Amino acid sequence: MKDQPYQPQAGIRPENADRARMLISCPDKPGIVAAVSQFLYEQGANIIQSDQYTMDPEGGMFFIRIEFDLQDLERRLPTLQEDFTRVSDRFSMRWSIFRASRRKRIALFVSKEDHCLLELLWQWQAGDLDAEISMVVSNHDDMRQLVESFGIPYHHVPVTPDTKAEAERQQLELTAGKVDLVVLARYMQIISPKFIERFPNRIINIHHSFLPAFVGGKPYQQAYNRGVKLIGATAHYVTEELDGGPIIEQDVQRVSHRENVNDLKRIGRHIERTVLARAIKWHVEDRLLVYQNKTVAFV
Amino acid sequence: MKDQPYQPQAGIRPENADRARMLISCPDKPGIVAAVSQFLYEQGANIIQSDQYTMDPEGGMFFIRIEFDLQDLERRLPTLQEDFTRVSDRFSMRWSIFRASRRKRIALFVSKEDHCLLELLWQWQAGDLDAEISMVVSNHDDMRQLVESFGIPYHHVPVTPDTKAEAERQQLELTAGKVDLVVLARYMQIISPKFIERFPNRIINIHHSFLPAFVGGKPYQQAYNRGVKLIGATAHYVTEELDGGPIIEQDVQRVSHRENVNDLKRIGRHIERTVLARAIKWHVEDRLLVYQNKTVAFV
Amino acid sequence: MKDQPYQPQAGIRPENADRARMLISCPDKPGIVAAVSQFLYEQGANIIQSDQYTMDPEGGMFFIRIEFDLQDLERRLPTLQEDFTRVSDRFSMRWSIFRASRRKRIALFVSKEDHCLLELLWQWQAGDLDAEISMVVSNHDDMRQLVESFGIPYHHVPVTPDTKAEAERQQLELTAGKVDLVVLARYMQIISPKFIERFPNRIINIHHSFLPAFVGGKPYQQAYNRGVKLIGATAHYVTEELDGGPIIEQDVQRVSHRENVNDLKRIGRHIERTVLARAIKWHVEDRLLVYQNKTVAFV
Amino acid sequence: MKDQPYQPQAGIRPENADRARMLISCPDKPGIVAAVSQFLYEQGANIIQSDQYTMDPEGGMFFIRIEFDLQDLERRLPTLQEDFTRVSDRFSMRWSIFRASRRKRIALFVSKEDHCLLELLWQWQAGDLDAEISMVVSNHDDMRQLVESFGIPYHHVPVTPDTKAEAERQQLELTAGKVDLVVLARYMQIISPKFIERFPNRIINIHHSFLPAFVGGKPYQQAYNRGVKLIGATAHYVTEELDGGPIIEQDVQRVSHRENVNDLKRIGRHIERTVLARAIKWHVEDRLLVYQNKTVAFV
Repeated sequence: MKDQPYQPQAGIRPENADRARMLISCPDKPGIVAAVSQFLYEQGANIIQSDQYTMDPEGGMFFIRIEFDLQDLERRLPTLQEDFTRVSDRFSMRWSIFRASRRKRIALFVSKEDHCLLELLWQWQAGDLDAEISMVVSNHDDMRQLVESFGIPYHHVPVTPDTKAEAERQQLELTAGKVDLVVLARYMQIISPKFIERFPNRIINIHHSFLPAFVGGKPYQQAYNRGVKLIGATAHYVTEELDGGPIIEQDVQRVSHRENVNDLKRIGRHIERTVLARAIKWHVEDRLLVYQNKTVAFV
Repeated sequence: MKDQPYQPQAGIRPENADRARMLISCPDKPGIVAAVSQFLYEQGANIIQSDQYTMDPEGGMFFIRIEFDLQDLERRLPTLQEDFTRVSDRFSMRWSIFRASRRKRIALFVSKEDHCLLELLWQWQAGDLDAEISMVVSNHDDMRQLVESFGIPYHHVPVTPDTKAEAERQQLELTAGKVDLVVLARYMQIISPKFIERFPNRIINIHHSFLPAFVGGKPYQQAYNRGVKLIGATAHYVTEELDGGPIIEQDVQRVSHRENVNDLKRIGRHIERTVLARAIKWHVEDRLLVYQNKTVAFV
Repeated sequence: MKDQPYQPQAGIRPENADRARMLISCPDKPGIVAAVSQFLYEQGANIIQSDQYTMDPEGGMFFIRIEFDLQDLERRLPTLQEDFTRVSDRFSMRWSIFRASRRKRIALFVSKEDHCLLELLWQWQAGDLDAEISMVVSNHDDMRQLVESFGIPYHHVPVTPDTKAEAERQQLELTAGKVDLVVLARYMQIISPKFIERFPNRIINIHHSFLPAFVGGKPYQQAYNRGVKLIGATAHYVTEELDGGPIIEQDVQRVSHRENVNDLKRIGRHIERTVLARAIKWHVEDRLLVYQNKTVAFV
Repeated sequence: MKDQPYQPQAGIRPENADRARMLISCPDKPGIVAAVSQFLYEQGANIIQSDQYTMDPEGGMFFIRIEFDLQDLERRLPTLQEDFTRVSDRFSMRWSIFRASRRKRIALFVSKEDHCLLELLWQWQAGDLDAEISMVVSNHDDMRQLVESFGIPYHHVPVTPDTKAEAERQQLELTAGKVDLVVLARYMQIISPKFIERFPNRIINIHHSFLPAFVGGKPYQQAYNRGVKLIGATAHYVTEELDGGPIIEQDVQRVSHRENVNDLKRIGRHIERTVLARAIKWHVEDRLLVYQNKTVAFV
């Protein structure tokens, strides 16, 4: 079964015109690598990089990411995909092929804290984030000037208990067909199941603790109260369970009794933006597969 | 108020005969450092190292650790302690003075996993752990030969649901007056409140997770199920709340989807022994103060 | 001897009006802490934090940093400093007192790479860098718009082999009496001994390697060629010896055979800005003492 | 060209009887993965894990490590190897196949420091080091009892300037045909080119610094003098250039001005044993390829 909805439609990079990335999950059995690599070879593709993982040699799942070059990819990809169903049917594969030249389009959702937003804008400007930032959506108007100075559209969608449904309708309208990935860059509103459903495994949140410790609100206050010696941040895909989705990346930093809650927040900001930026980089480079609420990260 | 029960009675190191360490906690107010350092100066002591921490300049607690040399310490310490009550009463201090030449006596409690025990034995043998390992107590007899080869007494105290009370009676008898610190080096039995009461803030446990994540049993299995990208270990003082006592030290290591539960255990063993050894080192060097279920660690 | 030239003259923060920081180095002998803390107590000061370090109890150097509050500091500081000479003469101290309310004034020197500059501007804007960025000086005009958008003066001082002396004359004129710290935030020109002399231990450079490995040019290329498994960055005070001054802070990140030189540069940018920002933070908070080409960092 | 001399002859593990690992290096061109995986599939092998790396898609080198299961491996491997020359000749491959069931045989060379030796003995005893420790060779007799208590032969080969040649002759005789990997676990003698030649890329040394900083003797003293803020250790293959061989693994730990040379040594011992153990683990699991004085580490 070919996964349908992922392929981004914009942001063409001519220099990578012939590069593609293939992600496959299927039940493990002998011959998968042979069949896929033989198929690609016959098509004239050159495998640049491949990573694979077998959960359990006996009856487990098999995951592979293959990066390949194929001359005249644009024209030949539809045929290649059609032909590949021979292979994929044989092994009951879930699979997708992404063209590296099509940058993924990101909508950044933010509230009042700007450190994650700034980090992403800067990495994007420096060319380190191979994606398109299509829009910033915020429940406040504070960062309009900053964002627009980067030439990026800014949408102020206020959210109050009364207008929550209407706000979400607006957010869906803004993003429909224009966004491949939603990033909650310290967006302090709960996302509804309906919105999540529209972006399955395509909403990344940064939680400001080392999950599963300190789920929910005020994690730095919780960390201070517990007297931990390391604080952390967690980037994860958003699912219906609060702070319970598949973890993409985590990191920590050492703290001591000297740090009060404000110090933890300051140190934490640094971890948050680093961890979130890494998670997004991996997503837009098609390095992440999700299986049973966990990520396989080919990084 | 002078804290009484801590002073170890054994393990004299002549080379440090004149070195002492003083730990003080009291409500903060002006003049504490002046009063204490003036007092020590008048006694003829030379301050080698001092670390202090004020929780909040306005009305918070004040903590200080002072390392000093005083000629002929052995003989003069009783008088010095008596005289110091002048100062301590003025500032409502809790305080203790430890002689560096008196090594703390440790009882190691173990079950079947030997990695923490081995690490401590090796650090002790290498001279990196400035303490005396007075005995090893285990609910199994497996490690007798190993432990006795280091010249350390080994006590096999089996524990079953029926004999738990009797076992604890034995443990208390073995350690009474002979042990300054109890280390649960992967000891897989719950310690009773009665035992804990006899060693307040003097039982250190190593928990094989990054607390407060994965409290309780099988933390590596829990970590695997949750798909975390870092696993950790936590050394903490034991209180009546399971895995809830003051955290002394924590550390983590990066893992990926490739690691199964057994891999996590293997990687975790390395973190556990490192973290536990650091916590013990800090304790026996009198670097830890406990206040409101948190540690102040002057390291 | 009171160290003269450091005290910044600008950037007053009223909220810290009564907070001061004292840095002292002197040969160790008994009674120093007592004398200083007694002196401060008699003046009515309250010690908030103190850190000390003795190189060697027998005949080594002694270093201390004391943070204290004194009501009406502004008015009483001159007298306090005069009176303190009694103490400082007795112990042959080098010492300085800094008022926390006077933010240090920084000149950022940059060339074409903007990541260190941006990090510092953001931290400054977020209130995490307790200093004043008085000016940016660059041998290129590229970053004028960015810098001026933060309301900071930008001085373009081109440097060619022929104009080097004249350029330096301009730089000295721009900074004379207006700058407490010069930060070389990836400034790709060699600073002359004459300039260094004007800012002793007050020029911080970020070198893009884990010194002393890969001194000099193209450190990432050198690191790639040697096949190291960690790359790093080093913030140090600038002395006449190239990349040889006292090290303030270092950090590293793991790399593998997969990373080419451009990847190392990208990863390195992240380490560089983090390490440089930490070093500057410590300097402006008066946490650094230099002794015999090494730093004592009370952090 | 099949690399000849590596295949260990001892230490059979029945549970892995059918598992093999293949390492290949060759100039990159299209079809390599297809050809190899097709070949393995036709032989009936199931690929469990594969990692590959292309230095440069245009004209660079290609490296791959494949782990596969093949029923009745023992009997069929000779034929498989013979048949594989068809593939390897076509792509000018250097290649080797290792049977996972044949544990590599290690000779540990030590002098007077025991921390690396102990770490390896424990990991081996705990089943974490999938190799056979065939012998310990030392220029001192100090650790005989310890080593023999693990049931491992101990050879005392004294080395003086006069007896160096004779000592090496003895070492070669002891190891000839009986050893797949020589580990210099803090062996403080220089190995001669002649000895190195006999074990190309099969001698691993632990150097007690973060190479290339502090090449040669007394690296901790050098680190202390330079005032670095991190110290490290480096495991590398031994070549004729002192401390100049391909780096396998490195790690570091934070230190401060408080640590004197002895403290650095103590902290360093912990890094050394960890880094060395990781490097050996990777070698014995056939995860390392050497190319142009660098390692490709599939870990």
